[in-house]
Amino acid sequence: MRNLSHSQIIWSPTLIILRTLRASVKPLDARCPVLRTYELTRSMQSQKGTLMAKNIANPAEDFSRWYLDVIREAELSDPAPVRGCMVIRPYGFAIWELMRDDLDRRFKETGHSNAYFPLFIPQSFITKEAEHVEGFSPELAVVTHAGGKELEEPLVVRPTSETIINHMFSKWINSYRDLPMLLNQWANVVRWELRPRPFLRTTEFLWQEGHTAHADEDEAREETMRMLRVYTDFMTEVAAIPVVPGRKTDREKFAGAVNTYTIEAMMSNGWALQGGTSHYLGTNFARAFDTMYLDSENERRPVHQTSWGVTTRLVGAAIMVHGDENGLKLPPRMAPIQVVVVPIARKEDEKDAVMKAAGDISAALRGAGIRVHVDDRDSISPGFKFNHWEVRGVPLRLELGPRDLAEGHVMASPRNRPGREGKFTLPLEGIAESCSGVLDTIQEEMLKAALEFRNSHTFDVESYDEFKKQIVERPGFYRVWWDGSAEDEAMIQEETKATVRCLPLEQRDGTGRCFLTGRETSTTAIIARAY
Amino acid sequence: MRNLSHSQIIWSPTLIILRTLRASVKPLDARCPVLRTYELTRSMQSQKGTLMAKNIANPAEDFSRWYLDVIREAELSDPAPVRGCMVIRPYGFAIWELMRDDLDRRFKETGHSNAYFPLFIPQSFITKEAEHVEGFSPELAVVTHAGGKELEEPLVVRPTSETIINHMFSKWINSYRDLPMLLNQWANVVRWELRPRPFLRTTEFLWQEGHTAHADEDEAREETMRMLRVYTDFMTEVAAIPVVPGRKTDREKFAGAVNTYTIEAMMSNGWALQGGTSHYLGTNFARAFDTMYLDSENERRPVHQTSWGVTTRLVGAAIMVHGDENGLKLPPRMAPIQVVVVPIARKEDEKDAVMKAAGDISAALRGAGIRVHVDDRDSISPGFKFNHWEVRGVPLRLELGPRDLAEGHVMASPRNRPGREGKFTLPLEGIAESCSGVLDTIQEEMLKAALEFRNSHTFDVESYDEFKKQIVERPGFYRVWWDGSAEDEAMIQEETKATVRCLPLEQRDGTGRCFLTGRETSTTAIIARAY
Repeated sequence: MRNLSHSQIIWSPTLIILRTLRASVKPLDARCPVLRTYELTRSMQSQKGTLMAKNIANPAEDFSRWYLDVIREAELSDPAPVRGCMVIRPYGFAIWELMRDDLDRRFKETGHSNAYFPLFIPQSFITKEAEHVEGFSPELAVVTHAGGKELEEPLVVRPTSETIINHMFSKWINSYRDLPMLLNQWANVVRWELRPRPFLRTTEFLWQEGHTAHADEDEAREETMRMLRVYTDFMTEVAAIPVVPGRKTDREKFAGAVNTYTIEAMMSNGWALQGGTSHYLGTNFARAFDTMYLDSENERRPVHQTSWGVTTRLVGAAIMVHGDENGLKLPPRMAPIQVVVVPIARKEDEKDAVMKAAGDISAALRGAGIRVHVDDRDSISPGFKFNHWEVRGVPLRLELGPRDLAEGHVMASPRNRPGREGKFTLPLEGIAESCSGVLDTIQEEMLKAALEFRNSHTFDVESYDEFKKQIVERPGFYRVWWDGSAEDEAMIQEETKATVRCLPLEQRDGTGRCFLTGRETSTTAIIARAY
Repeated sequence: MRNLSHSQIIWSPTLIILRTLRASVKPLDARCPVLRTYELTRSMQSQKGTLMAKNIANPAEDFSRWYLDVIREAELSDPAPVRGCMVIRPYGFAIWELMRDDLDRRFKETGHSNAYFPLFIPQSFITKEAEHVEGFSPELAVVTHAGGKELEEPLVVRPTSETIINHMFSKWINSYRDLPMLLNQWANVVRWELRPRPFLRTTEFLWQEGHTAHADEDEAREETMRMLRVYTDFMTEVAAIPVVPGRKTDREKFAGAVNTYTIEAMMSNGWALQGGTSHYLGTNFARAFDTMYLDSENERRPVHQTSWGVTTRLVGAAIMVHGDENGLKLPPRMAPIQVVVVPIARKEDEKDAVMKAAGDISAALRGAGIRVHVDDRDSISPGFKFNHWEVRGVPLRLELGPRDLAEGHVMASPRNRPGREGKFTLPLEGIAESCSGVLDTIQEEMLKAALEFRNSHTFDVESYDEFKKQIVERPGFYRVWWDGSAEDEAMIQEETKATVRCLPLEQRDGTGRCFLTGRETSTTAIIARAY
């Protein structure tokens, strides 16, 4: 085996493939009811071609099932044969790609470079020698065998690259000339998950982790807030999700950080979801890894660091903020298909003209930078197509009927205004410009709708008793005067399952009495149930 | 631990980090002499600021050491603390990003979508039950522990996603309407490596794997050749590396394929490197995974499949094709920095004008879509800067001296024409357009130089004795009439270390006698030493 050149090994893992061809792969349907249902639905659709019933639970009745239904029906992801892992299907991955590329552009504009650090981390980087014998941390996946034998030192599959990046920082940083060091990595990470949920909690997930080192505290704190702002802007401008930027309490912050900042979004069931975090790490890591630099006076100083990250759970957030009983609803800026064109020709002799118009419109839209798709499938009814793209959340549908075309226009149906009432006509003349305009409007309206929902589900409460009653009846963000301790937070979580999401950057003026302790305080907090 | 919300787990692997902060990370310099040398060099540079000596071996004397020297000095990658793995540093990763993004665009233009499949593959997918007890395949890394305990079934870290993708294909494909299915994945894969070499052979590497399923053989074969052409075009147009597209012999092909096609490039030491492969898989995988579809006549048929891939070894190829005794030499289309501007002001009163010109030129170039960097570092001499960017292979350097500027031009120094002879002046007027033109010329010249080198190192030989003698004295591509068997190939490899790289798509006219067996044949082959 070792005589093969690398080029062969890349494409000729002979043993593996031959074994696979011989091996009888176990049927997994029995283990994956979701998959089985999905198959059934598809084959029913294939046979009838006009099946209209949506296999989507009512979100008001069963939000949890609704979420899984949308993911399955919109073909965003499938369960993988390994527990807790998922396959991100092309449509789901295209959404992630749009988010990733937009964020990546923002990271580069703010001076960051991407790098790539290894998947495996030596056990000794993570646990102390004594712990080897006791066992492994429950969230870690550990490689014990490789190269055909047991490894002398087990390798941990990275749960984060924190340790390895800091290890490299200590090698790369020597002088003030090497600072600031502004790195980011897009990677897969693994944390063993017992209660998996696609996009929100999976054993393997995709994320980016930014790691930066600075000469002093001011610069590092500035970076921490800059990246929190980058996340806030991205969420608002692209994902159409309003967020509350704030600071985590000591109980909720990252243990290695001096301060953790977060952006908290509200899902349409009133729960919170942490969209991203940005940490000021102080010199904690610099001291642990001995990352020192010589300043211009030749003095040895520790670097001040930050880290910040978002994950594929943002796809889950977009589903839960915007989706409705008809499925996914995508803001145009994160929609793989922004406009779907459905040609409608009932008679054979209408077909050519309608198809030509569809081609012309699609070319015009593409020329204007719009992501457009013509659904020219034969033997599938327009009604089925409407349903197909509605479930997938395509922001704008153009219906091309012969009569409309003869009159010089098409019928437009924006996903965020469902039904007949939402429809309007668009003239063929200048169709690309008007579609651009409509997409901008949809983007704005979706942000506005999410903001209105959040505002109408944000409540001020004065007392803990009031809070306990209300959080059950109407989930949402509870804004309170706050002067509690970590023990108080634990008690609230124990009794109500809610947690202090953040101390918002925008604080209320004046002072008030802590809703729990009654002590006078100038701090307000947001408390909510959270994913 | 399990009570923490996912959001906390993402950023608060408390135990891990606290342990890390306490743990004394082992010093690794003793194990990594390359790293130690590197540190030494850097600190010498930091102190003196003008060190000119390049720590790069002469490629004619020690090609192997030269390769590692270039990677270290150009800061492309560093050895990782885990054997066989590497850290891809920002400059190296930026090169890979440019290659990846260009290829990704080509894949999408040819109708493919990206998806993401899990890192872990159940052991049973890869080996038969009986083999569990015997041990693991030597190229696999195996996770045996996760969630704090030993797994019932070990998980293999993917060496390729072939099995898991085929597993999903069999679920997703039911009808002819589901075809063609055209998927691609960008991912990290792991194959345990005993003789690692950065970019060329690493335990973990980055790659893309395309997997497609089609209704019939013709369509699948067409796809196989289309992707081979995409690779060929990319190598020629972007990497400025001429390649020989051809078919692999049965001995060299991927075991699961009916036919394997390859693009073979020549490195500047005369060795071959397989740049990418495209496989026609026939129905081999369809039968193993039962991937059947109903055709329009309701007949059950197996799909015909292809797969194709390239890896981070393409970065290694670019180093070895274009690099020289001064370091890296990047073709403009894969250069993270295409133009570096070096302001030269010896007197303090010249500084403002020179810096202003640098800013103006950089803005003009950026406006024309050119990746430009102004090296405005103080306390570092122009000579040091020239050297710094030369080692990193930046295609074009603009030197801005006060006298040149006063005369309305700058001095241009293209990386591929080193020294005084290569320099010429460029008028400030229309600098962006002329730089674009110069970059195009450099791109062309680099391809032409690589092609000329390959042509001058491609030899026709008539007999095996002649070949045996020549391959030692002048490594290169040996073009021969070929009618040998797999046993003959094994013998050639045993005796000369050379392998049949491919049977070029462009075959010689007529027939000749096989250089080994003497049998009359119409087939020609390329034989060479290879990475």
